[in-house]
Amino acid sequence: MKRRTPEVLEWARTLVEPALEAATRRLSPDLGLPARYHFGWVDPCGSPLEESLHGKGVRPTLALLSAGAAGAPPEIALPGAVAVELVHNFSLIHDDIIDDDDERRHRATVWKVFGVGDAIIVGDALMGLAFELLLEEATPARTAAATDLVQATMAMIAGQYMDMSFNRQDTVGVTECWEMVSRKTGALLAHASAVGAILADAPPETVEALRRFGRELGLCFQAIDDLLGIWGEPAVTGKPAGNDLRERKKSIPVAVALSSGTRAGEMLADLYAQEHLNESDIARAAALVEEAGGRSATAEAARDCMQRAAQALTAADLEEQPAEELLDLASFVVNREF
Amino acid sequence: MKRRTPEVLEWARTLVEPALEAATRRLSPDLGLPARYHFGWVDPCGSPLEESLHGKGVRPTLALLSAGAAGAPPEIALPGAVAVELVHNFSLIHDDIIDDDDERRHRATVWKVFGVGDAIIVGDALMGLAFELLLEEATPARTAAATDLVQATMAMIAGQYMDMSFNRQDTVGVTECWEMVSRKTGALLAHASAVGAILADAPPETVEALRRFGRELGLCFQAIDDLLGIWGEPAVTGKPAGNDLRERKKSIPVAVALSSGTRAGEMLADLYAQEHLNESDIARAAALVEEAGGRSATAEAARDCMQRAAQALTAADLEEQPAEELLDLASFVVNREF
Repeated sequence: MKRRTPEVLEWARTLVEPALEAATRRLSPDLGLPARYHFGWVDPCGSPLEESLHGKGVRPTLALLSAGAAGAPPEIALPGAVAVELVHNFSLIHDDIIDDDDERRHRATVWKVFGVGDAIIVGDALMGLAFELLLEEATPARTAAATDLVQATMAMIAGQYMDMSFNRQDTVGVTECWEMVSRKTGALLAHASAVGAILADAPPETVEALRRFGRELGLCFQAIDDLLGIWGEPAVTGKPAGNDLRERKKSIPVAVALSSGTRAGEMLADLYAQEHLNESDIARAAALVEEAGGRSATAEAARDCMQRAAQALTAADLEEQPAEELLDLASFVVNREF
Repeated sequence: MKRRTPEVLEWARTLVEPALEAATRRLSPDLGLPARYHFGWVDPCGSPLEESLHGKGVRPTLALLSAGAAGAPPEIALPGAVAVELVHNFSLIHDDIIDDDDERRHRATVWKVFGVGDAIIVGDALMGLAFELLLEEATPARTAAATDLVQATMAMIAGQYMDMSFNRQDTVGVTECWEMVSRKTGALLAHASAVGAILADAPPETVEALRRFGRELGLCFQAIDDLLGIWGEPAVTGKPAGNDLRERKKSIPVAVALSSGTRAGEMLADLYAQEHLNESDIARAAALVEEAGGRSATAEAARDCMQRAAQALTAADLEEQPAEELLDLASFVVNREF
């Protein structure tokens, strides 16, 4: 019988967290500390926290369910689940330095606590560890999983770099913006949703269907994240209202508005060109994005992506229960107030 | 007939540089620019330089020769040669941020020109690219080469972190210091010297002999680098005399002196504990390291390593010419004024 998503996430955590913990133990104790701090297991001195503050673990859960969906025992996906979580967290640690972010999950970021040098090197170590884990058994399936992961990682890095470049541009096109999202967020979620099937030696069409599901989930997730970045409740998002506008991010709704050819779009461009945006500018920018069609187009795109994600699963020949749990997980991930 | 080392390096460059250049072309043009700048092919705006300022290319040359030594065409090692050079350069780009170094090869470092964020991400991309290249053909030899490279990379990262930790300690033991060197410098040179044989599907004893050669070469290289860091001619090293002492580095000669149990060693420890070292302190520190036996022990260790490197090659059943060229290359690399 199909399990509820919180139960599925908890089940995945029970499987993955010990393996992830064991992976970080391979690092020297000194180098392992910033990693273990980042994962929310210990304080900056290495003392265990009463309650793990680790994230939801969406990517490892996708990996385990995708093995199940391909008709294999979920445990076969464990090395892939750990590796994708390592790559995701390497990118978070480096991104926090690059974006000068002080906090993540309500705690000081690694570079804030341990310094930039340590944060760079612990990120490097987690990336290496991911490939070391997958490659230490030289089966064709493990090699294929490592190859898929490295390609997803390269796409993710390219997407992160595109996002950084957007900050230096006055405007970005809608297509360009989706391309960035597809790489930065979509590629690793696509890999996570496919790697279980890859490790299960599933037929290519099964792997590709799961990959499409993961990519659409990534696009949907980012579209909703972008809506929340403008219209999200501060109490829910933990960030001030209109935060993405304050930082003049070229998010999807903004890219749509700037490219709309409407008067509201032009006025938004003028606002974005200003030195400083005060609170009333931000409220006005939000209204202009909405007037130029950015909000509705993004919400519609999110719905379309979710629909295509669901279609990818139903079109493939998958085990029923894990496939349903995958779809529920997708809804759970994107279903936030906006 | 055996070629002279400069000729061998030039031959390797002719083979490797186009492949390395093609590898960086896989990155988006924006992300490729800092990489191409770092490799010494272009200026910060992307205009080609008249003369390539790229390093000597010791690691790729080792890779090509090791395939030859194992009786295979050197070209079989090309993906391994490119991958090891990518990993080496990813580590240089990140190390320059970590060590706050402004210059490398008489040019501004990547982070100085493009900013810390870009330098972090281009380093990440070069590391990923190395594994992507090796894994894109799923043969057992390519997978074995990737596995060997990831293990060497993890050792190198651990060594770099040990080295950073030494800066925070008052003293380090001699064994600990060699362990750091073996990881930071030895592991990747060991891999470079073995990967050609791995890609040539050579028997394990051939691979291991070449690996031992590369590791000893790395230890010897670092021992001599450490001697140069104290007694090198500024005109030759490009750094002020006694530079390692000024930075209070725990290099091999210093570790030997500090652990010597001599009066000179104790006096060196007192000097190292001072807030600031002036020029006469540095001259005195150099004399104390020498008096405590640090200079002679390190020079002797360098000779021993070189001898063991040569023995590793003669003990194995290798093709004569490439084996001789490997040994000449090793002498060329370590044979600097000190």
